[in-house]
Amino acid sequence: MPLKVSDIGEKELIKRILKKSSSNIVKNSFFDNKAINSFKDDAALINFGDKYLVATSDILFKSAHFPDEMTYEQIGKKVVTANVSDLAAMGAKPLGIIIAVGLPKEMLLNDFDNLIGGILEGCTEYEMSLIGGDTNESGELTISGTCLGIVGKDEVLMKDGSNPGDIVAVTGPLGLAAAGFEILFNEEIELKDLNGNHKNIALKHALNPEAKSKEGVLLAKSGFITSCTDITDGLASEIGELVNASTQGIGITIFEEMIPLDSTVLEIARKVNKNPLEFILYYGEDFELLLTIDKDNFKEISAEIPLYQIGEVTSSSKMTIVKNNGQEEKLEPRGYEHLSR
Amino acid sequence: MPLKVSDIGEKELIKRILKKSSSNIVKNSFFDNKAINSFKDDAALINFGDKYLVATSDILFKSAHFPDEMTYEQIGKKVVTANVSDLAAMGAKPLGIIIAVGLPKEMLLNDFDNLIGGILEGCTEYEMSLIGGDTNESGELTISGTCLGIVGKDEVLMKDGSNPGDIVAVTGPLGLAAAGFEILFNEEIELKDLNGNHKNIALKHALNPEAKSKEGVLLAKSGFITSCTDITDGLASEIGELVNASTQGIGITIFEEMIPLDSTVLEIARKVNKNPLEFILYYGEDFELLLTIDKDNFKEISAEIPLYQIGEVTSSSKMTIVKNNGQEEKLEPRGYEHLSR
Repeated sequence: MPLKVSDIGEKELIKRILKKSSSNIVKNSFFDNKAINSFKDDAALINFGDKYLVATSDILFKSAHFPDEMTYEQIGKKVVTANVSDLAAMGAKPLGIIIAVGLPKEMLLNDFDNLIGGILEGCTEYEMSLIGGDTNESGELTISGTCLGIVGKDEVLMKDGSNPGDIVAVTGPLGLAAAGFEILFNEEIELKDLNGNHKNIALKHALNPEAKSKEGVLLAKSGFITSCTDITDGLASEIGELVNASTQGIGITIFEEMIPLDSTVLEIARKVNKNPLEFILYYGEDFELLLTIDKDNFKEISAEIPLYQIGEVTSSSKMTIVKNNGQEEKLEPRGYEHLSR
Repeated sequence: MPLKVSDIGEKELIKRILKKSSSNIVKNSFFDNKAINSFKDDAALINFGDKYLVATSDILFKSAHFPDEMTYEQIGKKVVTANVSDLAAMGAKPLGIIIAVGLPKEMLLNDFDNLIGGILEGCTEYEMSLIGGDTNESGELTISGTCLGIVGKDEVLMKDGSNPGDIVAVTGPLGLAAAGFEILFNEEIELKDLNGNHKNIALKHALNPEAKSKEGVLLAKSGFITSCTDITDGLASEIGELVNASTQGIGITIFEEMIPLDSTVLEIARKVNKNPLEFILYYGEDFELLLTIDKDNFKEISAEIPLYQIGEVTSSSKMTIVKNNGQEEKLEPRGYEHLSR
């Protein structure tokens, strides 16, 4: 039987593209070595004097990315957030976004207006401009965003720079979006039994997420961050990204007891009889940043930007998690992955 | 009845986006007045020293843009061509493209590889790099391309600069892609009766089109071009773009007898009982450039780059066509438009 794309999954497909494209790169004054290396990072870098222009593109589909409970404003805003989050992972300040949308013929004009309103709301929030738009007809609502940003050459954050001994940290509690999606999709959950505040927090993270844009820029300016990525596919998968990107064969060990556990996540996980750790490790859409940082600098930078240490970089090439019972287990870099069976 | 997006059509929707976004533009060192004006042009400009970085995004869907007769290599190449054509319309040299694809689960891995192969073939042809890629799951094959290019600040071609008295010209014969689509879709056509050479030329333009990238760059460098756009929605619609973009209320008159008519278009139009002028005015996908140029410079530049004069810029604010019988008729700026009923 010939192989299908779903037999190898999203991450392998992207690796396949990168492998094929590496021989095709046109070396010129716009792409230095770091820029060429960026093609496998969260966004692409282009030489821009003493800065890099940073470009990223995301395509989102109604059926896969926007639950029916999302308003059109929230859909528009989420497209901006998903793109800005990729820039934040490189430490780049967003400049502008170009939107290309595929619209079903029957979509109401009012819904279209609300969608554009949500995109503009996102632009205002992240202090950037909507710099171009294109529409097309499609079976389902499809939105492609291309975001451009700027970062100093000495400041840019990449996935590949962590060193053994570095602290592994995140910018905020994880699993809140997952908890929100449980409220939306898990029929076992009794909404009336939930703490109202928890319900609001979880739904906000699922339906109206925010990118850590300002934090990414500040972290980059600090000069202390050795590697960084954003958490869109779950913590375990993103830890795998940092380990795979390293050229010196680093490993990462995280500690269950260190992971910031929000009471919202705890309550909702208990209600649906799941381990809250699952929400954190294997669900995505948190849009927090995962980063590594030299031990000596951690205190200084975390006084300025709230950071939660969750583990350390090792020289073992392995990914492990030390459970609360003291046992160290292998951490599989799986996460939410499209196009897998 | 509430309005639907298909009640107002693609061009009006884009105008709606631009109107809403104009109040949202963040003025800073990256966006000068020309850059802000570019948001309604073929691509967006960003300040880059004495140059502009040019960014454009296109989203293409299997059902609307890729007939079954297209191979996956041709699909990949067409995505690159459609994006590069927008850069050519601004006179920009392409640097790189970011691709985000939505793939149906059942797509064969071999077809995916061929798609990427076609994208890379396009990159090689236009001397640029594939600088990023993302995949997602979707109902139908969907490809979003974001192309980045570079052009000198004094050279950039915009839609809005034509002056009364300018010559209106195109870079090549039009209607060939339309003729190719007739061969593919019109069941009345008897393929065996067609001149084989004509058949090959028409199918090549429909299935494997090329952007006028080098020509766009040369035209920009000449400094003689007053306005420019690429012909993707048919000549009449693109003439409307130049007329609408003008701030001095220009009009454009074209002459049927001047329009370059290829014998391929003539034969195929005759076979399907259509006026070849229809192929030229109201079908798209030619990817030639439409431009205006000062009368005194036309000879000099067309000695270097093949240009076909088709009309002239007037001060009448009107679009007209002078038919072969001498009658002047109003030219409607309609063309192939998605999302219209």
